[in-house]
Formats: sequence, C-alpha cells, structure tokens
Amino acid sequence: MPATPTRSLQVIQGVEAMRSAVREIQRGGETVGFVPTMGALHEGHLSLVDAAAAECDRVVASIFVNPTQFGPNEDFTKYPRPLERDLELLRGRGCELAFVPEAAEMYPWGYGTSIDVGPVAVPWEGAARPGHFAGVATVVLKLFECVPADRAYFGRKDYQQTLVVRRMVVDLNLPITVCVCPIVRDPDGLALSSRNVYLGADERQRALSLSQSLRLAEELVSSGQRSALVVRERMLAHLNAAGGVNVEYVAILRDGSVDEVAEIGGPVTVAVAARVGTTRLIDNLRIG
Amino acid sequence: MPATPTRSLQVIQGVEAMRSAVREIQRGGETVGFVPTMGALHEGHLSLVDAAAAECDRVVASIFVNPTQFGPNEDFTKYPRPLERDLELLRGRGCELAFVPEAAEMYPWGYGTSIDVGPVAVPWEGAARPGHFAGVATVVLKLFECVPADRAYFGRKDYQQTLVVRRMVVDLNLPITVCVCPIVRDPDGLALSSRNVYLGADERQRALSLSQSLRLAEELVSSGQRSALVVRERMLAHLNAAGGVNVEYVAILRDGSVDEVAEIGGPVTVAVAARVGTTRLIDNLRIG
Repeated sequence: MPATPTRSLQVIQGVEAMRSAVREIQRGGETVGFVPTMGALHEGHLSLVDAAAAECDRVVASIFVNPTQFGPNEDFTKYPRPLERDLELLRGRGCELAFVPEAAEMYPWGYGTSIDVGPVAVPWEGAARPGHFAGVATVVLKLFECVPADRAYFGRKDYQQTLVVRRMVVDLNLPITVCVCPIVRDPDGLALSSRNVYLGADERQRALSLSQSLRLAEELVSSGQRSALVVRERMLAHLNAAGGVNVEYVAILRDGSVDEVAEIGGPVTVAVAARVGTTRLIDNLRIG
Repeated sequence: MPATPTRSLQVIQGVEAMRSAVREIQRGGETVGFVPTMGALHEGHLSLVDAAAAECDRVVASIFVNPTQFGPNEDFTKYPRPLERDLELLRGRGCELAFVPEAAEMYPWGYGTSIDVGPVAVPWEGAARPGHFAGVATVVLKLFECVPADRAYFGRKDYQQTLVVRRMVVDLNLPITVCVCPIVRDPDGLALSSRNVYLGADERQRALSLSQSLRLAEELVSSGQRSALVVRERMLAHLNAAGGVNVEYVAILRDGSVDEVAEIGGPVTVAVAARVGTTRLIDNLRIG
C-alpha cells in the first residue's frame, strides 16, 4: 500500500484561476505535468498521473467530457461521469490540481473555431468518427492554453490521437512536451477503457479477441512473418472466430504514422477497431 | 523630431530564442506588446508599434510574409520585402525585438495543421480569398506561441481580420489581449497599405474613391439616412464614377460583426473591397 500523499487536491473550474495557478507554480521554479482526461478514470489514466508525478514537480489533471469529439450517434450523454470517485482517485495518486471546466465556459455562445491537423487525422479513427479529431485537437489546444504545463501525458491506447496531438504541437509551435505512456491492460489482456463498463460479461469475453489478435500478430512477426497481408488475415480470422465482434479495421502501420505497410521490415503499430455489441473498442500494439 | 530611442533592436530568427527572450522580459516583471506584420512597413504598422510602446514595457514586432494566407493567384512572390528598411523603421520607433522567422521553420516538412474560426471568416474577404483567413488565423496563433506577449496589436484596416483574430483568441482561450488601432491614411484619404506601392499615379487617384465613398456614407448617415440600401447604392455610384475601379463588395455591417444591416440604427462598419488595375484594395469606416 503506497504512503498516503500529504498534499491535497484543489479543484478549479475557471480558466483564469487555472492558468494563474499553473503560472504561480512555474514562477516558483517548479515544473508542471498535465494529464487531460474525460474522467471515468481507470489505471490507464492513473498511470499517466504517476508518470507526470515522476517527471514533474506538480501534477494537474483535467476532467472534461468534451462534446465536440463525439459524433451525433455516439455515447456523449451516457459517457460515465463519476466525478467524486475520479477526484478521490486523483488525490490518491498525488495529483494536486484538478481542472474541471464547464462546457458553457469552454464553448460559449458564438464559439466557432476548430483545428484540423491534416492527413494524420484522416484515415482509421478519423474515417470512422467524422469530426472526432478536430474536436480532440481543438479541446487539447484549449486545455493546453488553460493549463500551460511543461509536459502533457497521453496514453498509447489512443495511438492515432497521440499522432494528432504531436502533429498539432509541432505545427503550432506549442511550448509543451508531449509524453506518451504504455497501454495498461487487465490481467486477461483487455486494454483499459472507460467504455469497458458498457460490456456485458459475455461481450467482455469476446472483446478479449482484440488483444489476442495483437499478440497473435506479434508471434507471427517474431516467427519471421513479414507479409502484412498474411498477418492481417490471421488477425481477422481470430477476431471473426470470437463471434459478435464486428471489425471496423485492422491496420498494420509504420510505427509513428498512419501509413499501412505491405512488408513488415521495421517497427510497426498494429491497430484494431471493432464493435462488440454496441460498444466500440480500439487497441493497438507496437511490434519490432 | 522625436528623441532617438536609446535601446537597440535585436533581430531573432529562431522560435525557441524568441520565446525565451519574451519570457525573460516577463520574468523580470515587464509587459510585452507584440505587433505581427508581413513587413513592408508603413505608418499604419508603426502606429501599432507606438501604441504597443505606450501600453507595454517592451515591444516585439514580427516580420513574416506568410505564404499560407495568399491564394495561388495572389501576390505572394511580388509582395515587397524591404527587410533592412523595415528593421530601421522599427528601431526608430523603439521596437526592441524583431522576430524574423524562416518559412522552413514555420512550415517544415509534414506540416498539416490549420485553424478555421467558423462563420466570421466565411463572407466578404473570406469569400473573395478562399483559405485566406485559415492562413491568417493559423499563422497568428503560431506567432502568439512564438511571441507569448501580453498584448497584440492589429490595424483596423483589416476589419474582418480583427474579428477573426478576436474570435480565435476567445475560442481557444489564448492568454493575450487583442488591441485594435485606427486606420492610418495619407493626407488625401487613401488608407495606408503595403500594396499601395503597386498603384500607378493614375490608379492611385482612382483609388481615392474608396475612402471618398466611405466619407459619403458617413455624411449620408449623419444627415439622417437610415437605409443601408440607399447608402450602398450611393457609394457604388461614386465608386463606379471613378472609372477603372472594379468593386468586389460594399458591405454595411453591424459594427463588430460580419452581418449586413438593412436599417442603420446603431454603429455600423462600412467595408469596401475593389480592384484598381490589378491591385486589390480594402478600406472601411466605423459610423455611428
């Protein structure tokens, strides 16, 4: 059992108060790590808080279920919002500041701006979820302006999102270092996600086929398989055998990009998206 | 003759060096005013430097002919670039830092991001110059990230641009105050513009019809005319009488917006865009 952190958690709602708090810390010569979240925290998020705490003097997390990154038929209204529990979890990991803005301050009347990061946001998740990455990029920029931290932490489960955020940070000269942390999984391999709570017991079992298919790809590659086509077909066969798993894509990408490879000759990220029942899940694995 | 400023002008090309210089000033407790320009400076720009110097402890100007805000058939390549003269003018007005980035650092290989501020960027200049305001908004954000000043200064001649920048600053929670300064005119009324150098003597005379038409509108309104239709028709008649003036639009807008009014019942901005020869000119006047 970890020692109880002695620092308390301050919850801040206003943009100006948040910015001032971060700048005050930085004026004191301390660094700030920032973990943007939509709440419904799990060990994946908390591993980001841990990484921020290890690398920075102070940790700020934000909790904001951003409406603009949800499509019209997505789960914005039912997305879980266990705020008190989230704050308790953050407090327990040594996070000292929680930014919990209101949608009315983030998107007031007359709001019109959005950020398009270009080609990296187009395929895969971008194609499956029109407008999603514009919503993500825009809110992440806004959050960076409200929480002008030294470092920001994102989970690798949202692989393409990390590419989108990095692209934006480089392109817009944003003065923040983007840190990407490993996927956290349940012991059975399921990648942690706030959406896993939607899964029934049977669906959860079927959902294991996603991470299994990624391990299968890893085994194939380490056994010498170099054909992306073959790896992809074997993965699809595994996913389809699980039953009730509707695959949206299986993509074998040059690592650090959204570009498919034909021949696996260097590091790749294998990414999968599928619906299990009505729940949309994504997972990925870096290989090589 | 104004006293010779004693401070010298430091020219900075790199993004990190620029940001550090501004932050160093701010850490010392001084405020920074920022004047973004495309160079080819005239008294309009220099009035922004004066305003910044009056309101802030230190003034930074940028000189960057931003390729992304020019259309494919516009004057990017021939746009004047008298750098040494510009730096001398800035030095003479007490500007202490000039940010002169290279296009290769601002838009490196793989660059893909752009900012769309929504409805305010759509009509008038937005319609006449597709992509222009996305280019403007994006480079202004980038410049704000490179020059994290307290206040930024823009000229009112680019009326719609000031609305675009204000919209972006509000929407993206940018920590900077936008200041808009009056149009500076030659004694004959021509609004100063870096593009005025393109005008031949005869064209320059015809170009006076733009500011004259705005004064006409002002006279009509102060004489009690309330119909935007009538004011607009009278302005068009004046512009057409000048000969060789190809009007793109005459717009009577609720001041602070891009929305046309039918009845002039409060402050309006009357905006005009026209081509004189091959030179595109804009001008505007706040009335009421």
